[in-house]
Amino acid sequence: MQTPAFTHLVDTLPSTVPFVGPEAQERQLERAFLARIGANESVFGPSPQVKSAIADMAGDVWRYGDPEHFDLKAALAAKHGVSPHHIVSGEGIDGILGNLVRLFVGPGVAVVTSDGAYPTFNYHVNGFGGDLVKVPFDGDSEDPAALIQMAQSVKARLVYLSNPNNPMGSFHPRARIEEMVAALPDGCLLCLDEAYADFVDEDELPDIPVDHDRVIRLRTFSKAYGLAGIRIGYAITNAPLANAFNKIRNHFGVNSIAQTAAVAALADTGHQSSVRKAVAAALERVAGIAQANGCIGLPTRTNFIAVDCMQDGAFARRVLQALIGQGIFVRMPGVAPLDRCIRISAGTKSDLDALEAAFPKALQTAVVT
Amino acid sequence: MQTPAFTHLVDTLPSTVPFVGPEAQERQLERAFLARIGANESVFGPSPQVKSAIADMAGDVWRYGDPEHFDLKAALAAKHGVSPHHIVSGEGIDGILGNLVRLFVGPGVAVVTSDGAYPTFNYHVNGFGGDLVKVPFDGDSEDPAALIQMAQSVKARLVYLSNPNNPMGSFHPRARIEEMVAALPDGCLLCLDEAYADFVDEDELPDIPVDHDRVIRLRTFSKAYGLAGIRIGYAITNAPLANAFNKIRNHFGVNSIAQTAAVAALADTGHQSSVRKAVAAALERVAGIAQANGCIGLPTRTNFIAVDCMQDGAFARRVLQALIGQGIFVRMPGVAPLDRCIRISAGTKSDLDALEAAFPKALQTAVVT
Repeated sequence: MQTPAFTHLVDTLPSTVPFVGPEAQERQLERAFLARIGANESVFGPSPQVKSAIADMAGDVWRYGDPEHFDLKAALAAKHGVSPHHIVSGEGIDGILGNLVRLFVGPGVAVVTSDGAYPTFNYHVNGFGGDLVKVPFDGDSEDPAALIQMAQSVKARLVYLSNPNNPMGSFHPRARIEEMVAALPDGCLLCLDEAYADFVDEDELPDIPVDHDRVIRLRTFSKAYGLAGIRIGYAITNAPLANAFNKIRNHFGVNSIAQTAAVAALADTGHQSSVRKAVAAALERVAGIAQANGCIGLPTRTNFIAVDCMQDGAFARRVLQALIGQGIFVRMPGVAPLDRCIRISAGTKSDLDALEAAFPKALQTAVVT
Repeated sequence: MQTPAFTHLVDTLPSTVPFVGPEAQERQLERAFLARIGANESVFGPSPQVKSAIADMAGDVWRYGDPEHFDLKAALAAKHGVSPHHIVSGEGIDGILGNLVRLFVGPGVAVVTSDGAYPTFNYHVNGFGGDLVKVPFDGDSEDPAALIQMAQSVKARLVYLSNPNNPMGSFHPRARIEEMVAALPDGCLLCLDEAYADFVDEDELPDIPVDHDRVIRLRTFSKAYGLAGIRIGYAITNAPLANAFNKIRNHFGVNSIAQTAAVAALADTGHQSSVRKAVAAALERVAGIAQANGCIGLPTRTNFIAVDCMQDGAFARRVLQALIGQGIFVRMPGVAPLDRCIRISAGTKSDLDALEAAFPKALQTAVVT
């Protein structure tokens, strides 16, 4: 008998996944991590109001969530001073990126990103058969001018940039991004991933007209709001593009608890400030731990810090493995020369106590190996 | 300036959506529904253990959910006597259907379903450019023999059947489905939607070897388990197909609360039995209300009942509108001759009191109009 055939494209896709979760590593290690500071989650948790909202919703989960996300979009529109028609909400930035790529990318369509930028974006581009073209980082920053130049040269339909940057923590001032927007080639959409924008001040972010026909900005509740597990992200873009998502999205895909929790999270601005303060203090401590061990915490405008281990990628990879072996979950950039660093998220006091104890041993192990 | 171009396929897609949610209707009516018995949700709610599990999770939502759904897959594998490698879990059956279609369907690929079957399946097939071919229902049931014959004739790669059937409530005994499986053409996958399987006995369901290379069975927590809002469904299929979803799925798309809630729901078998009893009693009452008004509740093996309004689709549509106007949220099949019916989900006592009061008036309005 003949097995049903996958599409040709699916046959060409590898079985790799963008990220192995810490739970899989724990199952392999057969013990729980002491510190979970590898995925840029917010260890400071969600707002108490969010926790109450979730508990209050427990009996109501028998109802499908509103497929139009009306209340959430209204709250987001108010926050950003735009109309709900400019908002796309979905199952995290990852879910929105998947649909965004599906709207624009098919075999033969060129897409430009930076070598070492967000792997899940690449996963989606490959998943829809796009031709992914990568430009190098400029030092520890994505390079807007090089991205634009490459986009022009390969006639890219999408160009991706994260600001603040993941995995390095660097940040382009607003003028730099505004220049990039002004230089966008015809027919090319800037996919501006602002997952970490909640860690900078609003007036540091670029001013881009919401009806610009070639920009989409992505935001998330997974970082500053402490809602990674609940899966909710959103995009701000021109109304026709926002509406196009309705042609392909999983309309009932965003769960009802996520919608309610996100609305509650937006309302608690006090919690947002306190998280920013706690993150800054935690990252300062991580930088201190790095320095005390002859390493350097790079400047960061996110809730994580790239720690330069002052040698090559092979060395940093050994440091990472030795940290994981000691129960510290961290990750690192995938390509040189960024991979001289390991990436450490802001942690609680107990997380960072564990890091402080483990880090010198990890460096020692990495040297000796 | 030139706006970025959508793919050719996206340009051809309509902006319609499979289902308008009751919330949108409430906003339009400017009041809340008295009875929400239109989407086959479980008004009897989730298990008390699920509610506790959700409340307990509220502080933990800062963590990304396990992208491998390890605990949930283990619990599902145990329930079904299969290996976790045979399980696909995702953002409801809708989410899994979207990925399933993406794995197999592209422009020019034929897909067979019944005229009047689940619209969201059709939405996904159209969304990936497939050629959708529909065969009529046989009375109030999908017609396995006609589906197989058409699949053979158009060389379909997917053939869809729901059992128990939505929107009519009918049910094929296991032998009928087993015959269908035996007759599946080469290269054709049976997409067996068993969303309502929890309302029949396990031994009434077909016996299909889990490693069968041309069958995928779909299940959900949205119906009997009362977890529609939390978005979790799963599929049982051969391991290579289950694994292929990893090439394209949104790996972190299933929220952490859904995973935990689903595991808790599986454990509470007492709640499952009590829901089945409550559903049966509620549907008996709806059938009584139908009969008292000169209509007929069709036989059902689900948590809803198709009520034959004894006239044509235009009449039933007026009944539906008149019910909605009185605050009763119900839906109806989309095509003739199924659309002589309206579809009413099992309700609470108060839901059905409201229905009982509204139904005669709705029929009257429909006659007069």
